[in-house]
Amino acid sequence: MMRATNPVQVVFGDCDPAAIVFYPNIFRWMDGAFHHMLRPLGGHQYFCDALGIVGIGLVEVGARFRSPIRDGDTLLVEGHVSEWARRTLTLSYTGRVGDNLAFEGTEVRCLFTRGENGIVAGDTTDFREMLSRHYGG
Amino acid sequence: MMRATNPVQVVFGDCDPAAIVFYPNIFRWMDGAFHHMLRPLGGHQYFCDALGIVGIGLVEVGARFRSPIRDGDTLLVEGHVSEWARRTLTLSYTGRVGDNLAFEGTEVRCLFTRGENGIVAGDTTDFREMLSRHYGG
Amino acid sequence: MMRATNPVQVVFGDCDPAAIVFYPNIFRWMDGAFHHMLRPLGGHQYFCDALGIVGIGLVEVGARFRSPIRDGDTLLVEGHVSEWARRTLTLSYTGRVGDNLAFEGTEVRCLFTRGENGIVAGDTTDFREMLSRHYGG
Amino acid sequence: MMRATNPVQVVFGDCDPAAIVFYPNIFRWMDGAFHHMLRPLGGHQYFCDALGIVGIGLVEVGARFRSPIRDGDTLLVEGHVSEWARRTLTLSYTGRVGDNLAFEGTEVRCLFTRGENGIVAGDTTDFREMLSRHYGG
Repeated sequence: MMRATNPVQVVFGDCDPAAIVFYPNIFRWMDGAFHHMLRPLGGHQYFCDALGIVGIGLVEVGARFRSPIRDGDTLLVEGHVSEWARRTLTLSYTGRVGDNLAFEGTEVRCLFTRGENGIVAGDTTDFREMLSRHYGG
Repeated sequence: MMRATNPVQVVFGDCDPAAIVFYPNIFRWMDGAFHHMLRPLGGHQYFCDALGIVGIGLVEVGARFRSPIRDGDTLLVEGHVSEWARRTLTLSYTGRVGDNLAFEGTEVRCLFTRGENGIVAGDTTDFREMLSRHYGG
Repeated sequence: MMRATNPVQVVFGDCDPAAIVFYPNIFRWMDGAFHHMLRPLGGHQYFCDALGIVGIGLVEVGARFRSPIRDGDTLLVEGHVSEWARRTLTLSYTGRVGDNLAFEGTEVRCLFTRGENGIVAGDTTDFREMLSRHYGG
Repeated sequence: MMRATNPVQVVFGDCDPAAIVFYPNIFRWMDGAFHHMLRPLGGHQYFCDALGIVGIGLVEVGARFRSPIRDGDTLLVEGHVSEWARRTLTLSYTGRVGDNLAFEGTEVRCLFTRGENGIVAGDTTDFREMLSRHYGG
């Protein structure tokens, strides 16, 4: 079970004129949680070098917003890999302010690799093993 | 059929170290296209005042990324209301660079209204009529 | 001496195609450090209510970038009020990654107040006393 | 005289809870205007390749905010190189909403070049000539 947590101190500038978080910031924090997950193993660039890939990029994302997040909130973002497929991995996230569920989200990612005809989605096996060696699961 | 288009000149600073657009920006542009749709009728604040609501906020969003967007691209974001329900409206977006489909996205929005027990989702009927009077559909 | 520190875990998405932090984010973190400074006293909205102001906004900012900030860096942003004038306060910031000075910055802020002829800069005396009671100085 | 203009349709999400533009976005638009200036010559990456540099990065920036920018405003950002030095160039910007001056800003940039002991500021002569051939001045 791979997990990353990433406490965010929400500030004024993260919020819009309705005084709640401008929602693209929520994806910024989800993406950040993914990168925090890679950090203890060397970070995104390490995996690009080790796996010969261009990047671990997105093909699909989604989120449900359950309760508003505001200036001054401490938001805890948790994520883990919820599904491995041959050419994709799915990450599931939750964001909480105290006991309150603020959002649920998912990211589907690929290992983008330079192929003969442009960028293709590479095999996830090695990446899965590298993450599992560190996080278990 | 309500439609809004919003040409975006993608710049260096919209991109990440993989030299493609950092994906939360895509939601920023989708949200922007929604607000461009409200503009000729007076903008978001006009609707808040006219409908007695706090804001036209998000409950759910999603996107599929079909091809990378890069520095220098002209991105055309189109959106329209694809579904009206009593307490939600769904917007569907596409983003294109030339003939290339870059992304597809959806936003489910509510008319947030101050109720006796906090914020609730208001009835969409009046908002639908106001938009239809301008855009048809 | 009022001081606020705000450790930032820099992530991939904060960086541009040159793989260093996109500089507007540095101002986002400076502004965040100011709001962290207000937090233990109740945050920005508290001061708006207590002082009868619209906001503590910017009239002038500047920064010198001393060394690049990258994905994975822990950035420590420190700020303090370096000068009080009747209608402005100046904040001075530094950002460090380890022992390395990454940036120095300043913000000149006003207490924006609704006057008879639009927004004017209010007297800073009460705000200064409120901050001093908490932070000393 | 090199000039670039970049009309920005300001949207809701560019603004903060005080309903005015969150100021780091102003630097995002200044930086965007610089990159728009490079576009007709091939964009930032073209210059990196042609000049053998890592990037045209910032060493110092500043801005004065003259009047608030709001949701729905059309902001015209103009920039030009106001000073050339051997190892720096200075850009001066204005942002206007209609006849109203919204901000003035400056950026001091270097041509970052990989040297024997890390990144150094390269000679600006060739870059100046390339820009002058296109823009005159």
